[in-house]
This record gives sequence, C-alpha cells and structure tokens, in this order.
Amino acid sequence: MSARILVVDDQAANVRLLEARLQAEYFEVCTATNGADAIAVAKAEQPDLILLDVMMPVMDGYDTCSRIKDDPATRHIPVVMVTALDQREDRIRGLEAGADDFLTKPIDDVSMFARIRSLLRLKEVLDELRYRESSSALAGISGDVQDDIDAPARVVVVSADPRATCRFAAALPSKAEILETHDPAEAIIAARNDADLLIVDLTSPGYDGLRLCARIRSDAATRQLPILAVVRPADVQQAVRALDLGVNDIIQRPVDAGELAARSRTQLRRKRYADQLRSHLDEGMEMAVTDALTGLHNRRYISSRLRQAMDSASNGGAPVSLLLADIDHFKHINDTYGHDAGDRVLRDFSSRLQTGLRALDLAARYGGEEFVVVMPGAGLAEARIAAERLRSSIDGSGFDLSDGTSVPVTVSIGIAQAHRGEALDALLRRADEALYAAKTAGRNQVQAADNAAA
Amino acid sequence: MSARILVVDDQAANVRLLEARLQAEYFEVCTATNGADAIAVAKAEQPDLILLDVMMPVMDGYDTCSRIKDDPATRHIPVVMVTALDQREDRIRGLEAGADDFLTKPIDDVSMFARIRSLLRLKEVLDELRYRESSSALAGISGDVQDDIDAPARVVVVSADPRATCRFAAALPSKAEILETHDPAEAIIAARNDADLLIVDLTSPGYDGLRLCARIRSDAATRQLPILAVVRPADVQQAVRALDLGVNDIIQRPVDAGELAARSRTQLRRKRYADQLRSHLDEGMEMAVTDALTGLHNRRYISSRLRQAMDSASNGGAPVSLLLADIDHFKHINDTYGHDAGDRVLRDFSSRLQTGLRALDLAARYGGEEFVVVMPGAGLAEARIAAERLRSSIDGSGFDLSDGTSVPVTVSIGIAQAHRGEALDALLRRADEALYAAKTAGRNQVQAADNAAA
Ligand SMILES: [Mg+2]
Ligand SMILES: [Mg+2]
Repeated sequence: MSARILVVDDQAANVRLLEARLQAEYFEVCTATNGADAIAVAKAEQPDLILLDVMMPVMDGYDTCSRIKDDPATRHIPVVMVTALDQREDRIRGLEAGADDFLTKPIDDVSMFARIRSLLRLKEVLDELRYRESSSALAGISGDVQDDIDAPARVVVVSADPRATCRFAAALPSKAEILETHDPAEAIIAARNDADLLIVDLTSPGYDGLRLCARIRSDAATRQLPILAVVRPADVQQAVRALDLGVNDIIQRPVDAGELAARSRTQLRRKRYADQLRSHLDEGMEMAVTDALTGLHNRRYISSRLRQAMDSASNGGAPVSLLLADIDHFKHINDTYGHDAGDRVLRDFSSRLQTGLRALDLAARYGGEEFVVVMPGAGLAEARIAAERLRSSIDGSGFDLSDGTSVPVTVSIGIAQAHRGEALDALLRRADEALYAAKTAGRNQVQAADNAAA
Repeated sequence: MSARILVVDDQAANVRLLEARLQAEYFEVCTATNGADAIAVAKAEQPDLILLDVMMPVMDGYDTCSRIKDDPATRHIPVVMVTALDQREDRIRGLEAGADDFLTKPIDDVSMFARIRSLLRLKEVLDELRYRESSSALAGISGDVQDDIDAPARVVVVSADPRATCRFAAALPSKAEILETHDPAEAIIAARNDADLLIVDLTSPGYDGLRLCARIRSDAATRQLPILAVVRPADVQQAVRALDLGVNDIIQRPVDAGELAARSRTQLRRKRYADQLRSHLDEGMEMAVTDALTGLHNRRYISSRLRQAMDSASNGGAPVSLLLADIDHFKHINDTYGHDAGDRVLRDFSSRLQTGLRALDLAARYGGEEFVVVMPGAGLAEARIAAERLRSSIDGSGFDLSDGTSVPVTVSIGIAQAHRGEALDALLRRADEALYAAKTAGRNQVQAADNAAA
C-alpha cells in the first residue's frame, strides 16, 4: 500500500535521508523543517502519516504533535515520533501529546515499514467511514465526535505470568473493568463480550499469543477490537509479525506502567472514535426511514415496503391490506391546546397504534396526522378487525396533555386490500376514498374500499 | 492481517497441505471437499477468501464459483481458483465464472500470500461499507446493488509500446472510452478525471510504472481507482511488489486479449459495486435531513442548524431571525382538489420559497403545510423584507394543478429574531405566536414577534 508521508525534521540532511528511504519503497513524501510548517502542510496536504522529529527549535515535536491532534482537520493522521534518545519520559510525553508510536534514531527499516504499514491499514478503513460521515449534511448535526477519557472500558489481559497480569492491570484506567486470563479460549469469549481492548503478552509460555491475535482478527465479531501486544525486547521479528497480523500497538518488556497506561488510552480513544463514527452513520441511515416525532417509520420507508408486499401478492404470494388512519379534528387540537399538545397526541396515538399490531405489520406516519399500516398476509376481514381495534383504543380513553388535561380523540380509518397487479397509487387512492367515506359518515369509524377489481 | 480462508479441494490430502501452509501464516482455515459443501460453508461461515480447486467431480470449480458469485450472501467473498493446468481457456472460463484470480499448482507461497493479502485488504474497506449499508433498514429500500455490464467506462491505458496499447484497447468493452498515454503525468490527470480503470504496463521502458501506481494510490482523488498491471512473465518479485503497492490485479505478458477483457470486466464490476455502496450510504445520510416530498431540508435538520446559529448569536456572533410560514386554508385545498393537488401545491410553494432566499438562508418543511426559514446574520427588519417577498410571491399568481386549474394560495408568516441566550423552543414559540396573530388578523400577512427580551 502506497501513501503520502510527511517527514518533519529541523535537520535538512535527516529529511533528505528519510525521504530517500521512503521513496525507495514507493511512498510519496512531503516535508517540513519546523513545527509551524509541519502543521500547515499536514492541514493543506492531508498526508496519510507523519514522521515527526522530537528535538526541534522553537516548537518541539511534542508541541507540534499536540497541535496536530487538537485540530479536527488533522487529528485522524497517525503521528510517529522520531527520537534520538529512547527515554521512558520522552515516550510517555509523546504518547500523551497524542503520538501513535516512536522510532529511535538510527531508524531500523524493518521496524519502520512494519509500523507504517500497520498504521496505514488501520487508517484506510477509518478514512472511508470518516469521509462518508463528514461529506454528509448530517455531520453538522451529529456534531463533532466526542472523546471521553473517563468512559468505562472493558479490558481483557492475557498472560501466563500472574505478576505481569497484575502490573498490567494496575496501569489501566481506574474505570476499566479488567478480565485476566491465560486461557486463549476464555480470552476469545471475553473479547466477543463487548471488550474495548485486548492486551496479549506474547512473551508468556503456555499458549500461542500470535495465534490468539490471529483468531481475534479473523473473527468478524472481534475484528475491530484493538490489540496491544507485549513483545520481547529487541525482537524485531516478533514485533513485525505481530503488527503484520493486525495487532494495533506493541510495547516491549520490561513493561513500563506509565507507557502501558498511555498506549492503552490511545487505543481506547481510537476505538471510541471509530465506534462513534459507525454509530453516526448507522443513526443517519436509521433517520432516513424514521419519523422524528413519533419514532414510527416514515412515508418513504412504508411506500417501499408496501410496494414489495404488493409485488409479492401479485406474484401469487400472500395478500396484503392497508389501513389509512386520520385523526379526527386534529387541527382543532393544535389550535386549542397548542403545537406541543398536538405533538404529544401524535406520539401517544403512535404508541397506541403500535400496541394493537401483529409483529409483521408495519406502521408509519404518512404525514401530518395521517398514519398508514401495511398488513402483509392479511385480507380485508383481518384488516377490519385491526382497524376496529385501533379505533376503539383511541376512542376508549382520553389523551393526557402535559398539564394533566385529558382530551378526547377519535380516528377515522379507511381500509383496502390490494388487487392483483394493482399499482401502489391506485391502492392508496382506494384507501383514501374509504377514509373519506368514514369522515363524511360522521368520523370515528372504519370504512372499507370496494373490494371488486377496478 | 489475519483472516478466515475456506479451502476447497476434492483431494483431502490437498486440503490438509494447504491448510497447514495457511495456518503456519496464522490464517484461520475452514474446509470443504466438494462444491455443494463449499457453497454451504461459504454461506454459513462467511470466510474472507476462498481457495477453490477447479477439477472436482459432480460440481466443478467453475460451477461452484458461479453459484457463490450469484448469491448476494456470498458474492462479496473473493475467490481464487487453483488449477493444475495453466491453460488460457481455463483462466478465462474461471474469470467469467466470477473468480478473482488464479493460482497454478504447485502453488508458490510468495505469490499466494501476496495475492491473499491484496484481496483481503481490498475486501476490508468494502466490508465496512457493506456492513453499514446492509445493517440499515434502508438496505431493503435502495434494493440490491445492481450490476450493469454494459455501462460506459473510462479506461486509461499506460504503455510505451504502441502495439501493446493498441492490443489492450481492443480487448476492452466496446462502450469503454479509452485514453492511451505513455506519460505518467498525463495518466495521473486522466485518472483524476473520473476514470474507472487504469491499465499500467510495468514491462514498458521509459517510465517507472510502479512509481505511477504508487502515486495513484497515494492521491486521495484516485485511491479507489482499480489498477490492472501488466507484468513480466515469471517475475514473481515484480508481481508481488505491484500487489503490495495496492495494484488490484495483474496480468502476465504476453497479454491474452480474452484474459485482459475478463480481468478488466471484473475490476469494472467491482468498482461499480463499491461506487454504488458509497452512494447508497451517502443518499441515506442525505435522506435523513431531507423532506421527501419537497426536497427541502426537514425539521430535524433545521432545528439543529437553528440551534447552531442561535448559539453563535448568543456568543456575540451575528444575529439570527426566523420565518414561520403556514399555507392558509391548506386543508381546504386538500379536501377540494385531493391529496395529489395538495402535494403539488406544497412542492410549488417550496420552490417559490427558495427562489426568494439569500444563499445562506436555510429553508425547511417543518411539517404538514408549515415551513421554516432560518436567516443567519439577519435582524427583524431583513426578516420582514424576506417574509413580505415570500408572501407576495405566493399571493402574486395562482398555483397550477395537473388538470390546468389555477388555485389561488396565500400564506401567513410569523417572524422573530432570537434573543441572546434564548432557548430554541422559546424562539419558536414567539414565531408561532406571531404566525397565530397573522392568521387571526385575516391571513395572507406577516406579523413580527415582540422583540423585547422575555
Ligand atoms: Mg532535531
Ligand atoms: Mg481436484
């Protein structure tokens, strides 16, 4: 996978060296020699990854990283910090500034490219979601994806070394619910049970840690679960293998508690971001078929489902019938008690409507005070029973307003059964005529459309 | 990246051998020894990739592949056919059955794993989109993603060998619009210009074909463009390098026209599928904020935008005003001329409404015959001008019905400017009171809410 990488170093010679190595592997490279430029280039060029020198005059790497991660326009870009000294404090400071990983100068090619590939692969899927979400008008509505550091999290810790398990657990956020195990089968079950992070000790004897990581990645139910692997020090091959299998991050033995805490937080934060992106998209798709006020399906959805049921009926399948219900004198309710009261009646009406339906009936708000119920498999006789049940449940007891007032409400209903080969509009027209008949005959009643084919 | 792979071969020894090699690379393996089982396992287990033997009794690999690719539940799973003989006819027959690629027995590990990695990576992003789409209620509405083999396509062919270019072009679908070039810069421009497929000859001297592929993949505008690379025969390293860079498919020199045609069709089909998935999602997100009848924004959207504008105004930003417009005696129009006429009036009203607005004003159908316009940056005086313009454009000429009848329509409008710190509901209530005043004062007029802070 090729990608564009931003190389930032205050030494022009370092920039050129790294650029040449990246280009030899067919990466596209853009460059900056100070923090301010790096921030500007990141924003304008939207690189896929940033290699960021720590030691720079004026604005150092930590500060640069923080600013990149604070800006919604660039925070999704992975940052790998490049340090001359491999000090614990530096690593933690970098992770806390939002860095995704570290490379120590002189940079080893194998480690660097394994890390780059891993971060790029993770970014690829997220980019697709992020793009779909951000390009929609909904983006502004759902608002910025929020990060809650103190959100509770479920973490599974896998190690055969009880002291290690204990130390790992102690480093995790205080709100984390931790499950400790040395049994891969148990780890898989725990991972499937809404886990937020899996920490796997690959240095532990007694089980195959890489195999466990592979299983977690192969299983659709846990594919998105972040994995943090604990690897042997200076074992580049193990680290590369883990990253290539899809492990999200690695930490070397002996494990520093502060570093584990920082890396865990990074993984948890990224998972929350991905989860929120997915649920924003899912909510958007849901909204598209839902009436916001009542939570019933909307006209768009019900028309499509009705068409499907009518097609099926025309092709020799089960019959399909339709209820068209209109609240009587609804305008009067609105005018007398106000719009809030009207909305309340619509919501209450909707829940009474749904209570009386079979599981496969589909109810929708068709517009204003008009509702449609599609009854697959039902003939006119069944539709009449359902309609009469709805009518009497509305008429049976008043609708409570917020001030305690009870308002009597009634509904008029037209029913019709689809003819073989009938067009959607024709069926709706017949139901509408039946509804009109119910209205003119005095309201609060059910009328059926003529069942003879037109 | 680990994944689950289904191995299908009628010889149990072959299955075991391939299983062992895949497991050594940490893949999860499921198996089948005949076509019928393969289809059942693919459906039930949803593997990420299928390695499918061609020569099997009863149902051979071609037939099995066709059935897997015909079923919406399995057609997204990549299939790599495994053949004992590397015959041109076999390859084309397999590609036409929907296979994604071929491996020749004895299988070379390097080629196999490069191919598997490449197909899995492509599947990963698509899975994410597919899952979002299929899990939504919208899936049933938008219907199955359709494939149109004869859809026009734009293909960019890059080779320095004019005879090769000519032969490649001749193999492409007749509806393809082909751009031939040997200049990478020109190829990039063409690729960005809505191309559907890029064919790059990596055996051609005079330019760096791999570099071109890397550039296409690094550029956000062309990241999704399928690339089919023409490679040297028996140069495994070149093929692996191309696949690792993100090339979608490879074909060896000497290029067989039939095979090129089949592989091109596969890539074009896959791109159309991905494009349609993306646009389904985008449409879903769009529908979530759109009123289906009028195409205006819906209540959900406008409430959110109004809240944003009010927050901004409260924080010292520009003022914001609101129009609440209600068509006079709309129920009478519906009752007299029917619902179709009513819908027509609503649509016509919406377009007149939009015509009179500034670019930054936001109009929405608020429900029924009620409309809202949010005017960021506008005070009450500007709102009054806009409201009066709307009122007179509605009153100025009748609304044409489908039968040629012209119906006079008028509108009553309440306007209000947001107070600093005012709640959304309070502003809407004031606008509603102004609207009510306009109605009671005789309709077809504009009334402003009292501008004194509550
Ligand atoms: Mg420096
Ligand atoms: Mg065989």
